Amino acid sequence: MYSVTVRDHMMIAHSFKGQVFGPAQRLHGATFVVDVELKRPDLDGDGIVVDIARAMEALRQVLSELNFRNLDEVPSLAGRNTTSEVLARVVFDGMAAAIARGDLGPGAAAIEQMRVTLHESHIASASFEDRVVARPSSR
Amino acid sequence: MYSVTVRDHMMIAHSFKGQVFGPAQRLHGATFVVDVELKRPDLDGDGIVVDIARAMEALRQVLSELNFRNLDEVPSLAGRNTTSEVLARVVFDGMAAAIARGDLGPGAAAIEQMRVTLHESHIASASFEDRVVARPSSR
Amino acid sequence: MYSVTVRDHMMIAHSFKGQVFGPAQRLHGATFVVDVELKRPDLDGDGIVVDIARAMEALRQVLSELNFRNLDEVPSLAGRNTTSEVLARVVFDGMAAAIARGDLGPGAAAIEQMRVTLHESHIASASFEDRVVARPSSR
Amino acid sequence: MYSVTVRDHMMIAHSFKGQVFGPAQRLHGATFVVDVELKRPDLDGDGIVVDIARAMEALRQVLSELNFRNLDEVPSLAGRNTTSEVLARVVFDGMAAAIARGDLGPGAAAIEQMRVTLHESHIASASFEDRVVARPSSR
Amino acid sequence: MYSVTVRDHMMIAHSFKGQVFGPAQRLHGATFVVDVELKRPDLDGDGIVVDIARAMEALRQVLSELNFRNLDEVPSLAGRNTTSEVLARVVFDGMAAAIARGDLGPGAAAIEQMRVTLHESHIASASFEDRVVARPSSR
Amino acid sequence: MYSVTVRDHMMIAHSFKGQVFGPAQRLHGATFVVDVELKRPDLDGDGIVVDIARAMEALRQVLSELNFRNLDEVPSLAGRNTTSEVLARVVFDGMAAAIARGDLGPGAAAIEQMRVTLHESHIASASFEDRVVARPSSR
Repeated sequence: MYSVTVRDHMMIAHSFKGQVFGPAQRLHGATFVVDVELKRPDLDGDGIVVDIARAMEALRQVLSELNFRNLDEVPSLAGRNTTSEVLARVVFDGMAAAIARGDLGPGAAAIEQMRVTLHESHIASASFEDRVVARPSSR
Repeated sequence: MYSVTVRDHMMIAHSFKGQVFGPAQRLHGATFVVDVELKRPDLDGDGIVVDIARAMEALRQVLSELNFRNLDEVPSLAGRNTTSEVLARVVFDGMAAAIARGDLGPGAAAIEQMRVTLHESHIASASFEDRVVARPSSR
Repeated sequence: MYSVTVRDHMMIAHSFKGQVFGPAQRLHGATFVVDVELKRPDLDGDGIVVDIARAMEALRQVLSELNFRNLDEVPSLAGRNTTSEVLARVVFDGMAAAIARGDLGPGAAAIEQMRVTLHESHIASASFEDRVVARPSSR
Repeated sequence: MYSVTVRDHMMIAHSFKGQVFGPAQRLHGATFVVDVELKRPDLDGDGIVVDIARAMEALRQVLSELNFRNLDEVPSLAGRNTTSEVLARVVFDGMAAAIARGDLGPGAAAIEQMRVTLHESHIASASFEDRVVARPSSR
Repeated sequence: MYSVTVRDHMMIAHSFKGQVFGPAQRLHGATFVVDVELKRPDLDGDGIVVDIARAMEALRQVLSELNFRNLDEVPSLAGRNTTSEVLARVVFDGMAAAIARGDLGPGAAAIEQMRVTLHESHIASASFEDRVVARPSSR
Repeated sequence: MYSVTVRDHMMIAHSFKGQVFGPAQRLHGATFVVDVELKRPDLDGDGIVVDIARAMEALRQVLSELNFRNLDEVPSLAGRNTTSEVLARVVFDGMAAAIARGDLGPGAAAIEQMRVTLHESHIASASFEDRVVARPSSR
């Protein structure tokens, strides 16, 4: 299996509901350094997994909907705890939708698997990995 | 699959038996920066893989049995080469036992897979990954 | 000149006032990975710059006043833009006060210089460095 | 599953053919920081996945055929785009051949899986992972 | 002294003249991860060293003149060994010129010192640091 | 001022004397990732601070006297606490002696300043920086 990984970041505010979160129930924030790994079994005719410039632009677009925002007030996230795990899934779904729309180019249709990792500090991160199939971004 | 990874470290002395180890047969030491990745297919009702504070405390406890010690004199490790690979397994078993005891909370029972990585320098690391099932820490 | 550097982090929300900040005028957040470097010309009788455990505890204390908070609502920061640069100074002043109080031990009185760096992402950081002298934390 | 990862690097020039590469169609270059992860289900009698010194030497040998060269002029790569993905495969095949020749010692015959990652910058990397079986280095 | 550091990168080909360079006399290449640290004694009225977005854009512009090129054929570098040290100076001069032109905003005139670091691999880097004064980019 | 930094590592055992060290009074160990930064005001005729291959070899030699050893039994260190700070100085003195002997080449005589940093974990490091002058390695 081949893969390519691209990195970007976002800076957000949020708060969590639930005693398990302790002081993180207060409004606070995070820098998420985001790695997206795109996997396919064979390379295309150019010798690549995907057009890396398009993958980076798609990631920038996905993150721009969250970047420099208070996630407690983002309608599409209403009623959910925007933990690192949940946000890894949100980024995954956004990238999967971009692939389905063709934003990463026609060759990206061969991508079979994707892993999204959000590094929230030098000592903690969260990931979501799944197969990539064209589907509505429901959860 | 979702995952959460937490990081801590330990500083130990040890020596190895076997010609393959060359100068590492002498008493020397290492800092191991330890990453523990906990995986489960779905998130709990709070939107998390596990209570990250509990996971970090469990890891600190597991490492405290080895930290600042000469592993050549730790009874539970007697007769074994405490290579990075072997220690990755020791940390894995310690974390699995903590999960089985409920130290990471009841939700941790949903953890299916765990990967432990020990970084021994900027150019070398070792990992052990396996399914997590409740079992005595024997090997 | 000898130095010792310790690292910790904090996760905060804030917003900035001023057109120069663009989208960062909105409420957002950051993880700051914080490095504190303590410098002195000679080592003490134990061969150290400072008791590193005390330095880490002092840093944890300084960060705990800001960690998991919305800095827009922290009274001691009212009316200021809590940029990375400003926060580097706030951490500097907090550590300098801890040294002056003796929290890092009597040997810490020999510390002459301190540098505080806040890493806000994988591509940006800010620092404040100055001489360390006992003084009130006013600015 | 156990694994050991070793790191080295190479510095090469190359150019790409194909509009998808944009300015990278010009002659340019890269530092590739290369991680090779070797996996096997059980450890040998010494408690290791592989003799790490031999693994590092084998990697150094594989990279030495490419290091400090213009890959556009390396005969064995003629007619191919030497993308990070393709080079990950080239390093994989070189390491697999070294294992098959016994360069990593007889115990390395138990290695079942290998993952090669080339970091081309702080924001992009490529990997190739596959089972390891004795075979000619054809592609 | 306050400072802000921004990071970007470039990927270039080049060769060196001189026996001291050994195999690096051949045409090869490098990824340079570039850190630019800008220093001034006091913050401006917004609480910043410099508009970080403008600093990143200026760095991108400076690197774009070298990025994805064979430096052996860049006229402005003719007759010089484009070592990491020399390129650190080239980036320094480019950023100093951008500051002098006002590209980083009027507040950047207060910048007194700049340090440019080029990371050429995980084990080697080079830096150039100097005072910043408006001057022609001669060397 | 120009500088070049090279990185290597060593893995040692040791123990400390003094209540301030707490559990580190026991025999334990560390991996030290070592950075040596060499500084001079101007480059030589080849456009370099120093022959980087010779600098790396000199560092390897200096570390080889300590690597894979129990520092409590190294005669030249008898009676001293081999803290990170003290070892930074030991490496500094070893590199300064190598420069004085000409091991880094005649051009290295122009090196004016050196900084040695030992990273003992992902959260702590120690440095020693001083002018470089030919002198006996007394302390």
